[in-house]
Amino acid sequence: MNTFGQYFRVTTFGESHGTAVGAVIDGCPPGLELGVEDIQAELDLRKPGQSDLTTPREEPDRVEILSGVFEGKTLGTSIALIIYNRDMRPYDYSKIKDLYRPGHADYTYQRKYGRRDYRGGGRSSGRETAARVAAGAVARKLLAGKGIQVVSFARMIGGIWLEESEPRIGGEPGMVGDPGKVAGQVAELRSRIYGSKVRCSHAETASAMEQAIQAAGEEKDSVGGIVEVRAYGAPAGLGDPVFGKIDARIAQAVLSLGAVKGIEFGSGFRLAEMRGSEANDHFTTAADGEVLPETNRAGGMAGGISTGQPIVCRAVVKPTASIGKVQKTVDAAGNPLDLRIEGRHDPCIVIRIVPVIEHMVNLVLLDLYLAHRAIQGWT
Amino acid sequence: MNTFGQYFRVTTFGESHGTAVGAVIDGCPPGLELGVEDIQAELDLRKPGQSDLTTPREEPDRVEILSGVFEGKTLGTSIALIIYNRDMRPYDYSKIKDLYRPGHADYTYQRKYGRRDYRGGGRSSGRETAARVAAGAVARKLLAGKGIQVVSFARMIGGIWLEESEPRIGGEPGMVGDPGKVAGQVAELRSRIYGSKVRCSHAETASAMEQAIQAAGEEKDSVGGIVEVRAYGAPAGLGDPVFGKIDARIAQAVLSLGAVKGIEFGSGFRLAEMRGSEANDHFTTAADGEVLPETNRAGGMAGGISTGQPIVCRAVVKPTASIGKVQKTVDAAGNPLDLRIEGRHDPCIVIRIVPVIEHMVNLVLLDLYLAHRAIQGWT
Amino acid sequence: MNTFGQYFRVTTFGESHGTAVGAVIDGCPPGLELGVEDIQAELDLRKPGQSDLTTPREEPDRVEILSGVFEGKTLGTSIALIIYNRDMRPYDYSKIKDLYRPGHADYTYQRKYGRRDYRGGGRSSGRETAARVAAGAVARKLLAGKGIQVVSFARMIGGIWLEESEPRIGGEPGMVGDPGKVAGQVAELRSRIYGSKVRCSHAETASAMEQAIQAAGEEKDSVGGIVEVRAYGAPAGLGDPVFGKIDARIAQAVLSLGAVKGIEFGSGFRLAEMRGSEANDHFTTAADGEVLPETNRAGGMAGGISTGQPIVCRAVVKPTASIGKVQKTVDAAGNPLDLRIEGRHDPCIVIRIVPVIEHMVNLVLLDLYLAHRAIQGWT
Amino acid sequence: MNTFGQYFRVTTFGESHGTAVGAVIDGCPPGLELGVEDIQAELDLRKPGQSDLTTPREEPDRVEILSGVFEGKTLGTSIALIIYNRDMRPYDYSKIKDLYRPGHADYTYQRKYGRRDYRGGGRSSGRETAARVAAGAVARKLLAGKGIQVVSFARMIGGIWLEESEPRIGGEPGMVGDPGKVAGQVAELRSRIYGSKVRCSHAETASAMEQAIQAAGEEKDSVGGIVEVRAYGAPAGLGDPVFGKIDARIAQAVLSLGAVKGIEFGSGFRLAEMRGSEANDHFTTAADGEVLPETNRAGGMAGGISTGQPIVCRAVVKPTASIGKVQKTVDAAGNPLDLRIEGRHDPCIVIRIVPVIEHMVNLVLLDLYLAHRAIQGWT
Repeated sequence: MNTFGQYFRVTTFGESHGTAVGAVIDGCPPGLELGVEDIQAELDLRKPGQSDLTTPREEPDRVEILSGVFEGKTLGTSIALIIYNRDMRPYDYSKIKDLYRPGHADYTYQRKYGRRDYRGGGRSSGRETAARVAAGAVARKLLAGKGIQVVSFARMIGGIWLEESEPRIGGEPGMVGDPGKVAGQVAELRSRIYGSKVRCSHAETASAMEQAIQAAGEEKDSVGGIVEVRAYGAPAGLGDPVFGKIDARIAQAVLSLGAVKGIEFGSGFRLAEMRGSEANDHFTTAADGEVLPETNRAGGMAGGISTGQPIVCRAVVKPTASIGKVQKTVDAAGNPLDLRIEGRHDPCIVIRIVPVIEHMVNLVLLDLYLAHRAIQGWT
Repeated sequence: MNTFGQYFRVTTFGESHGTAVGAVIDGCPPGLELGVEDIQAELDLRKPGQSDLTTPREEPDRVEILSGVFEGKTLGTSIALIIYNRDMRPYDYSKIKDLYRPGHADYTYQRKYGRRDYRGGGRSSGRETAARVAAGAVARKLLAGKGIQVVSFARMIGGIWLEESEPRIGGEPGMVGDPGKVAGQVAELRSRIYGSKVRCSHAETASAMEQAIQAAGEEKDSVGGIVEVRAYGAPAGLGDPVFGKIDARIAQAVLSLGAVKGIEFGSGFRLAEMRGSEANDHFTTAADGEVLPETNRAGGMAGGISTGQPIVCRAVVKPTASIGKVQKTVDAAGNPLDLRIEGRHDPCIVIRIVPVIEHMVNLVLLDLYLAHRAIQGWT
Repeated sequence: MNTFGQYFRVTTFGESHGTAVGAVIDGCPPGLELGVEDIQAELDLRKPGQSDLTTPREEPDRVEILSGVFEGKTLGTSIALIIYNRDMRPYDYSKIKDLYRPGHADYTYQRKYGRRDYRGGGRSSGRETAARVAAGAVARKLLAGKGIQVVSFARMIGGIWLEESEPRIGGEPGMVGDPGKVAGQVAELRSRIYGSKVRCSHAETASAMEQAIQAAGEEKDSVGGIVEVRAYGAPAGLGDPVFGKIDARIAQAVLSLGAVKGIEFGSGFRLAEMRGSEANDHFTTAADGEVLPETNRAGGMAGGISTGQPIVCRAVVKPTASIGKVQKTVDAAGNPLDLRIEGRHDPCIVIRIVPVIEHMVNLVLLDLYLAHRAIQGWT
Repeated sequence: MNTFGQYFRVTTFGESHGTAVGAVIDGCPPGLELGVEDIQAELDLRKPGQSDLTTPREEPDRVEILSGVFEGKTLGTSIALIIYNRDMRPYDYSKIKDLYRPGHADYTYQRKYGRRDYRGGGRSSGRETAARVAAGAVARKLLAGKGIQVVSFARMIGGIWLEESEPRIGGEPGMVGDPGKVAGQVAELRSRIYGSKVRCSHAETASAMEQAIQAAGEEKDSVGGIVEVRAYGAPAGLGDPVFGKIDARIAQAVLSLGAVKGIEFGSGFRLAEMRGSEANDHFTTAADGEVLPETNRAGGMAGGISTGQPIVCRAVVKPTASIGKVQKTVDAAGNPLDLRIEGRHDPCIVIRIVPVIEHMVNLVLLDLYLAHRAIQGWT
């Protein structure tokens, strides 16, 4: 399945060392002002080489719009986005052709398909996520027009945690009243996050995270972490009963990233140790008389449908599989091997996955918003 | 969305206090021997009143097969399963009609649809999962014919953890060689798990879990926990690149249960604190010369495709929302309220959700197996 | 595939001689007033035994609503509709168990599935369409609220044609201005059509059609015909470019009926013999200044998207396969056989398929309406 | 919806005067030998300028494979195919910007989306079908490996009919025994069809068709026709009960072409005038003792499932909408206009649509074949 979504459907293609990666968007409303620059800005947040903490591989990641946009606005037809792969230097693939790199999908692709593009991760490479970000950038712009903004950031890297009280928007936790009131704060927070090398808005914590990454990098090793996503301004009512729950949809979206190995919503795994009397979100009355949940332990939802509160989840990102450190493994023929992955790799993939997770959540929210719009107010 | 799956599609219906709940299965291969008893046996693992630890509400949950089976075998056509709701005693709904129960979906359904079936959880009730178990029982039987068995159990309840080394099948961790060899062990383990009131195969731990539940129950409160799922015998190659990753699909399936608030695969959240050199699963050579992963930190998959190892994940289950303890909240009109949920409720929903999670994983694995079968060995 | 639609999804089940047939509707907007009587009224238009021209088999076809409706209104959750099969008299199936009835699907089901429900058509029986009508009745009510009405009727039966100029609504052909203006006329036409035994609003033609059916029936043979569908009040803009064209969707819907062997839109097959200068619909200016197509040779659409004109198509219905006349065939073992199908069968299935086709078009139009609603007016 | 298929999913994009058209194929089995030349050969059958009977517009239609193929074989991952639009000469669009061309979709796109790519048909242009042919070429190669071959041809053009007895393969009508026996004949027939300017294998008829086209062209008018499709070698059992009937799926596929206004299967519309005793296909015993249908009035299917006979259908193609002849219409502002479409256009689109229809049927058959493969022989 290379397609995501039911109403806003994104189909992606491309191997890391093939000709191009790209996405076709189906179901985009007409009339949205959309330029290459809207998409490029988001791709730039994911691209390598942004700081000394990410791989310096040159992937300029220039996106082109091939269809679906005319005179600067979407037509309502399918939008094809393409990013040609440029950094295809001659490389001696014989070194990795006959082995399965630990922590990579070489082994499972070979078992499933009987062949694989051994020049790199191929379709399983993180490079594939550039296409998701490109599509997500369109979703983001559509959501912004409805007052919905998603931000994500590093909650933890290499054992360094951002304090729970950070970041804080409006009257968090509990609820956000009028999204209009916090829109500016959220935009400002997002810009601080991406202003940080490690995608953490708290300077001191960010600095400690950087050191953790550098320490691992110096040992030719890598670190993992936890990415948090917060969506502000989503109205109550997104998501569907049963299989289309908002958390189920976000979980699928975020776990579809190769490096993510778990997700939790609201208080998440801590709920397992709570009593019901501690875990339930009770209701209260806002100044304007509206009845609202008082706390947000459930992550902005109940029964899989949004409450109107911030939607909150955290995903665990495993440490980068490609490390320079020697690994004892066997090759595809079963011969013992001291493997040392060459080249420069990201010592911490959390940094670059932050915008990808953000955009996967954008895709989910937009899809649910369109679904909701189809039936809302019919009678 | 009330449909799950792409090849083995399950569509469910029913409110907790309506006439019936049920499922329609589309895509079941023909020729499977299937009787009501196959399905009833699984439903009985989920039904209330199995011990003094679950709600004594009488829901006999008798399933009927309305179509798709003829002369004891599946026809290949859609299979309709129905469970009439029997326990519909007269009840004074006026007590809950005008309030949103904390931790339930009353609020979000009202906001989304402008109305709700206030006689209980309606479509958001856990009762809906009976239909999933009924469908899952069919999937389970199909998978069993291919040597695939899923078991789930309580890893933790109310703070009481089952030790990590338990349970153990064959040469775990690492890998399972021939599923045929362990099939008997897995079946035996499953029967021990369901022989326990708390779905835990280790007697002493089970006993401590029971006490934790009783303690909460006596305080008219509830506890949560963690359910672990292990699938044995799945071949390498299940799952798809990008959006159809096996973990993404399982995450969607399991998070689509109202009480589940998070999931992790393999070493899960602990990977966030590991170095790459610790997290990677290296390869080794089996006695028969086959190359296999040596460890199983990734939970039986790489790049979202199964390795042939046990597939392992854990889901967090929040404590039951319905508690007898007084909760300070407001009613739908905003009036302060000391809420005390009447009736007997499960003080720990973990017990009854164990088979439901198991069957959601059965549905995913079967769906992926059919998808794999469509393309496998074409050329 | 037992599911139809993308936004308003209908999943059906049931064999002709099994326990029940039924449908689960997913995606119905909340708040629609819906009672059993709304659905029963439509089922009654399809049921056998309405006149001396249809089979007198007793199928009372009583529908029950099992879920999705509360206090007389739809909840927004899945709606299960069930019709128990009542007319299951003891019958000696040994006569048809070992042969493939000509014109039926016995042969292909056996080849596909290796087994079949030989007690009748099973899943391939026309009885399955009762579930479609039940679902279509819900769609019809939703569309009526938006001013859209579909009518169908016998254009030809047994060689007797209804004149092309009949029936006529408002200023047909060409266009219909305000649907509000013609709503009453359409409702009146529909009631005249169903007031006719043969579903033809023109009394003289209807009488000739009746005679053609009787003549065939007396010879223990059957006749076919052509059903026309006209949808009034559909706004411009329904349907999607490329694969989701309104005619493609209707064609799939109508050809999914076993007895239908072809479909044409607007001037249909006659377009093959026209010149472009004759076939094109030119534009004109309405009294209110609006630009509209002047003629309707394309059947109310262009490029697969509705124009706002009546949507017009015709489907060919083959003569009933079950006939009392002797047929020379072989049994499943290859032995020559003089087959005489026993029992009373419809000498002309056109009569009973008229409402079924109508409801299939209702399902398509509602699905496209919901799709259109999701994106319409976003920016 | 820009995606077609459920197992072999094709997503297309592109406007006629945009940067490119293309397709992304999802679900292609791995290991298929696939080169650009396989696809190019099929595109060349559709391209303009092949004879004096088609538009001389230069659309070299060079396809590129961007992903999913490595070392000459498919990887099992998504395959992106792209065809850049080259023939984008400066053109004064002001002439058509403010009017709705009769017979085109300008009007409905404008009504649906509030905007359109007025530089030509945009997404509604026949140019879009190049992407379908590219994807169909992959399907064709996969089907060929299973002995399934689809051919289509002009049955009628401008009133000139190819005699019903033509073309004939093996022992038609009735049945085809072993596809292996007729494979060579079918390939030879196909090459004769495409060797004809008008896609008709019978020289005399072809010559009369050419004259009909030329006559219309000289009057700056256009002609329509009927395309027939015959699929040989499809096994019994393709297609699904109810909504997934093989004829329903083919109807959707073929009607999704803008110029097609109707379709019929087997004896099609003639069945409406037949008696049941004439219309039914009876069974007979083949030389090897196998029981088979004796005739093929149903077009190679029963109950929507293939019988193993040739699958036969015919589609009506309307005359080209773009004609040089003066058309009396109004512009978008309502001003009367004598419209004369400039430039050279195909006086008969039947010729170029023949391979497109063929490939749409390839896409359907492959999709159904994969679906069948998933469940076949499970037990």
